[in-house]
Amino acid sequence: MSTLDENAIRDKVLGSHWHRCSAADVRRAARKGLLTGPTSGLAEDFVQANLTILPKKDAHDFLRFCQLNARPCPVVAVSDPGAFHIPQLGEDFDIRTDVTKYRIFKNGKAVDEPADITKYWRDDLVTFALGCSFTFEHEFLADGIYLRHIETGTNLPVFITNVPVATAGPFRGNLVVSMRPLSVKDTIRAVQISSRFPLAHGAPVHIGFPQEIGIADIMKPDFGEPLEIKSNEHPVFWACGVTPQIALEHAKLEFAITHSPGHMLLTDIPRRSLAIL
Amino acid sequence: MSTLDENAIRDKVLGSHWHRCSAADVRRAARKGLLTGPTSGLAEDFVQANLTILPKKDAHDFLRFCQLNARPCPVVAVSDPGAFHIPQLGEDFDIRTDVTKYRIFKNGKAVDEPADITKYWRDDLVTFALGCSFTFEHEFLADGIYLRHIETGTNLPVFITNVPVATAGPFRGNLVVSMRPLSVKDTIRAVQISSRFPLAHGAPVHIGFPQEIGIADIMKPDFGEPLEIKSNEHPVFWACGVTPQIALEHAKLEFAITHSPGHMLLTDIPRRSLAIL
Repeated sequence: MSTLDENAIRDKVLGSHWHRCSAADVRRAARKGLLTGPTSGLAEDFVQANLTILPKKDAHDFLRFCQLNARPCPVVAVSDPGAFHIPQLGEDFDIRTDVTKYRIFKNGKAVDEPADITKYWRDDLVTFALGCSFTFEHEFLADGIYLRHIETGTNLPVFITNVPVATAGPFRGNLVVSMRPLSVKDTIRAVQISSRFPLAHGAPVHIGFPQEIGIADIMKPDFGEPLEIKSNEHPVFWACGVTPQIALEHAKLEFAITHSPGHMLLTDIPRRSLAIL
Repeated sequence: MSTLDENAIRDKVLGSHWHRCSAADVRRAARKGLLTGPTSGLAEDFVQANLTILPKKDAHDFLRFCQLNARPCPVVAVSDPGAFHIPQLGEDFDIRTDVTKYRIFKNGKAVDEPADITKYWRDDLVTFALGCSFTFEHEFLADGIYLRHIETGTNLPVFITNVPVATAGPFRGNLVVSMRPLSVKDTIRAVQISSRFPLAHGAPVHIGFPQEIGIADIMKPDFGEPLEIKSNEHPVFWACGVTPQIALEHAKLEFAITHSPGHMLLTDIPRRSLAIL
């Protein structure tokens, strides 16, 4: 591969037009090690997904778990066992190299955080791509909805609720939610917009009253950074892709792989094609 | 007209199947004086509308007012001047007799509340039918959303806000809103359902924070009865058809006719045909 080629990819993905580049550009940059960080804002016209990779013997239970809990676990694609090319997700595609950072789990414990999982690959592995709220956040911004965590440049506050999700095989746990503080006007508009994207968690699961879902202190999230809520704003809660990760930890599988938080899988699926209306 | 005929109409409109009767049945019963009361729950498959009748010289300003303020004043139909048959609204139809109770205004003051406006009719009168929230309330109930004012059998609490609406000619005033207390789950679902019915006021205009729209005491509505709001419920506010009535009072027109509150105009328009999705 020539240096010129690498420079062209680097410019597209890390240069001033990074939000306009294609998902394939991002995957190629990750594959070559030119891009190593989180993917927020990259290739904004394309669907970013949560990644879970499991042995075939656990895959059926996990798929049932997702089907039972479609709000936190919307299934965008499931691969054939052992396949690292996944045509539903992209043309120039290798799941072993195209995410910037992975997490390797053995017996339920994170043991490695590599940029490439080729050495861990097995013929019985099934890949799940689950939808992510980045998809509707782009629509929010395009509609003029103010998102504080984007202004502060911090990770969204994420909470483990006291609401149990449906169990399938070893997969169980409580619903995990992300919180965005929104004005009344933006709250109503955000329900409308996110309802159009069931494969990106869909409508909010809760508005206001954090204690009703077991959140004792809204300024102490379980993951991410706290966000100020102004006196005329509602805390608005969406089902979150951390829910299946928690279920995965509970399941204590012999082997599993996920993306590292914030380091999503970039797909060739146009973001707007996920809108049901 | 034979007594048998009248009995048949009375049975359909006032008997056990009143919510299933047709809008034409209700209009005929009103025309014959067999029905004199409010129309809530009657002929539930059909659109009920707010009624405003004005001289042609004022009609253009009023139509502009409605167009500028489509949330509180969604225009379902406008008649030809002088026409009391309005084919867009129904086949067997006479606007002079088919509403159970009208209000006559002279120089901005209510001067009469007749069951028939034939003696007031003029060749220059233009009829406006404006959408009404009864349309989406049926959808709420069908979806299992709990509506307290239906259980208590009271009129919805209605508030004059501090939010000015757009002015057209003599028509001006503040936005008027109705309030329904809803659980968090029902709030989210109600935004989705009512958004599908822009001709029935559409999505809420406000959720929570009554003081932000100038409501000092939520238990003291300007019209209707107060409703309890439980600690895990939001007060949810929709734009209300009383808004144009207030604007009409401000306009102090030489002559105008409206329905009497709760005594709506029944149209042959199928309720569900107003759904945009």
